[in-house]
Amino acid sequence: MELVVGNMTFSTWSLRPWLVLKRCGAEFTVREVPLYGPESPAALAEASPTGKVPVLNVDGVTIWDSMAICVFAAERFPDAKFWPADAHARWLARSVACEMHSGFGALRNECGMGPDAAGIIHTMVGPDRAPTPTSESVAADVRRFVAIVTEMRARFGAGGPYLFGEWSMPDAFFTPLATRFRHYQIDLAAHGDSDGVAAKYVAELLQQPDFLEWAEQAVTVRP
Amino acid sequence: MELVVGNMTFSTWSLRPWLVLKRCGAEFTVREVPLYGPESPAALAEASPTGKVPVLNVDGVTIWDSMAICVFAAERFPDAKFWPADAHARWLARSVACEMHSGFGALRNECGMGPDAAGIIHTMVGPDRAPTPTSESVAADVRRFVAIVTEMRARFGAGGPYLFGEWSMPDAFFTPLATRFRHYQIDLAAHGDSDGVAAKYVAELLQQPDFLEWAEQAVTVRP
Repeated sequence: MELVVGNMTFSTWSLRPWLVLKRCGAEFTVREVPLYGPESPAALAEASPTGKVPVLNVDGVTIWDSMAICVFAAERFPDAKFWPADAHARWLARSVACEMHSGFGALRNECGMGPDAAGIIHTMVGPDRAPTPTSESVAADVRRFVAIVTEMRARFGAGGPYLFGEWSMPDAFFTPLATRFRHYQIDLAAHGDSDGVAAKYVAELLQQPDFLEWAEQAVTVRP
Repeated sequence: MELVVGNMTFSTWSLRPWLVLKRCGAEFTVREVPLYGPESPAALAEASPTGKVPVLNVDGVTIWDSMAICVFAAERFPDAKFWPADAHARWLARSVACEMHSGFGALRNECGMGPDAAGIIHTMVGPDRAPTPTSESVAADVRRFVAIVTEMRARFGAGGPYLFGEWSMPDAFFTPLATRFRHYQIDLAAHGDSDGVAAKYVAELLQQPDFLEWAEQAVTVRP
């Protein structure tokens, strides 16, 4: 299997299936395609039918879309238990992952990774930090994240530090969001996280060993 | 089970899980929440944790997000065979459905359903038609749709008139798009559909009996 990703420094969509494939112990190679260089349009068109990454090349088939790759991995590696075994938890876990897949637009647009309009490069890793956006739409997205974490941790968090206790698919989908909160210095306590449950969960995602391995490899900052 | 939908005249996201639940013969009731009336914000906040519909209430759990509801249905009703049995077809079917779930933004934004800025109400059903958008981003989305249909019909279309032959999940996700093509009078032949395969597929979606039943029920046009 070959996972084609965007720049590991800032391709948030690429991080998700990478975390999932690492988690299940799949053997796979990684090919990094630059997202914003002069060669990018041709490289992306060659790599992906949508012109977007990530894609997974497996058994002669190109699976595109981060969610489709993650669901393929859950199917291929059932022992990895990417979805909670409890039915109610599983239905909610899917709701959370799907909401992240199509939603949280303000956080994605206003807390972007990669070069911004001023030419500053924002990265998911590394020590650089950026000013916190002040828009109400970003604040609404953050409140929604805090509400999800507060509810799911209270209901299902007994078995471990992740959203549904043990690590599962929503954690892969929320890890890029955790990097946005860190880089853009978003104070969750100011958005409903009065007991610090969401901040603690974000910290867990950012110290998860597979994510640290990604961060270690994400050293080349280039467009 | 109770499926909470937006106005059936123009809630494209609601149509998808409705088609899936109909297809598997599930017993469910439908509750329609107005999307654009003065009572809408309170009604949506009451009905859904995201403030968006559709949601499915089942066994005391509220499943939100159209994709999560569809995947729940595939899990609950395995005999309905919502995903192709052939592994390669299944991986691609998931890629297509997921791409529709998070993508095709230009078609969604510029070929919207519901009241537009001028106060004209656009609907998925009924005889009214609207001018065709001329933006390059819409054209790119239409070309992408045509490319998907052309490839999948050629590879997997032998078993029936739908995208992967027999009706499957991507058909539920593409039916709302078919209503946009009709209402906004988009000529697929001008976007790469030289052999008419995509136009024929769109016509199949719009004459599928479950969709016709939805259209028959979608009589009340109100914000």
